[in-house]
Amino acid sequence: MERIDDLEFNNLKLIQNPDWFCFGIDSILLVDFAKKMKNNSNVIDLGTGTGILPILLSCKTKGTHFTGIEIQEEVANIAKRNVLLNNLQDKIDIFNMDILNLKSKFSKGSFNVVITNPPYKKKNSGLINNNEKKIISRHEITATLKNFIEISAFLLKDLGEFYMVHKAERLADIIENMRINKIEPKLIKTVSPNKQKKPNIILIKGVKNANPFLEFEKNLYIYNDKGSYTEDILKIYNKI
Amino acid sequence: MERIDDLEFNNLKLIQNPDWFCFGIDSILLVDFAKKMKNNSNVIDLGTGTGILPILLSCKTKGTHFTGIEIQEEVANIAKRNVLLNNLQDKIDIFNMDILNLKSKFSKGSFNVVITNPPYKKKNSGLINNNEKKIISRHEITATLKNFIEISAFLLKDLGEFYMVHKAERLADIIENMRINKIEPKLIKTVSPNKQKKPNIILIKGVKNANPFLEFEKNLYIYNDKGSYTEDILKIYNKI
Repeated sequence: MERIDDLEFNNLKLIQNPDWFCFGIDSILLVDFAKKMKNNSNVIDLGTGTGILPILLSCKTKGTHFTGIEIQEEVANIAKRNVLLNNLQDKIDIFNMDILNLKSKFSKGSFNVVITNPPYKKKNSGLINNNEKKIISRHEITATLKNFIEISAFLLKDLGEFYMVHKAERLADIIENMRINKIEPKLIKTVSPNKQKKPNIILIKGVKNANPFLEFEKNLYIYNDKGSYTEDILKIYNKI
Repeated sequence: MERIDDLEFNNLKLIQNPDWFCFGIDSILLVDFAKKMKNNSNVIDLGTGTGILPILLSCKTKGTHFTGIEIQEEVANIAKRNVLLNNLQDKIDIFNMDILNLKSKFSKGSFNVVITNPPYKKKNSGLINNNEKKIISRHEITATLKNFIEISAFLLKDLGEFYMVHKAERLADIIENMRINKIEPKLIKTVSPNKQKKPNIILIKGVKNANPFLEFEKNLYIYNDKGSYTEDILKIYNKI
């Protein structure tokens, strides 16, 4: 069953279908991490789902245009309806495509910024959710992490910015593939559920053909000792 | 001027010359990180300085033998005297050698564990300390990070363990070179001066020819809000 959520920012709304896949806090963290992108950027989101990243970033940044790519037809259709619902059709285009086919649609270096919250789980790993849309959103069934990074490098202009959220356990794969594809890792933010737990999510920024110099941001904790959101998370949600 | 420091553990003592280079908290963090090494390991320390790592690890682990390599003759001589001072000559050998020549001294796969706290700064980067011994200890004058990792891979047995401490800004270089040399990154610990500051040191464990699966440990903070050591650091120093 579809539902419409209030994103509690600029009156933005989002249609989602919880039977398939709803955006999670990782998308919100990626929006916050990527919102420092350069002004006037032409941005592409690889695996946009219902369009949460381009919809929020179109309001939180001075990006000029946003493209969302979603392989699942019904999910891409929801993303298109979300763009219309928020009257963002001048700034956002959604395409129902496999990212593996993007090289025939866009020329090399077409974008200033790539953002992506790709499927987290390796093919044939972990519990497979008994639902095809959830499987494609969460597992590397159609495209692998390596594909996502290689295509990002193709799409990025020289010194273009790459922003990704992923499971912390994949950081070596991410860095290795970024280096192979000349997207230099420049900034990492680790995220832990709380102070007692280890970081399990990472946010990483890379810059195409940049010189090496990697910085870390402070580790972000989602919940405080009382089980409520930390001040850092409330700030991200614009609640304080 | 030389001085003798009490390491406040098992009555261990260490001769150092503060005009050259004294061990820092990064060495203590690496000892703590590496002390979980498998029992009965044959261990080599690349760039051992005055021998702090093999001396502490010979007492904190069940390693059978420790080899320390130091390129600077006077510093290696202090390391040798430190081994005798602590009566550890049966467990520790110090060699005054350039790590670039280790392949002619040891056969491939001679060690279960490599530990290293290599020079942090790239050649021709940062302020050069006006003292040749400090320069060699801190800068990649004689061997680069790439050399350290490539030689570590040569020295390690299959499934042998690699433990390194380095500046966080070099993590991409470290991971890329570990992957190239088949030392799979398995564990990362980020270290921040305090809660207000970003991680600036990383500890990384790799395993030769292992399957990919990277875990993070909790971020470690050195100082608390009052400017004293945190409980985590006091535990490492065996003070609580």
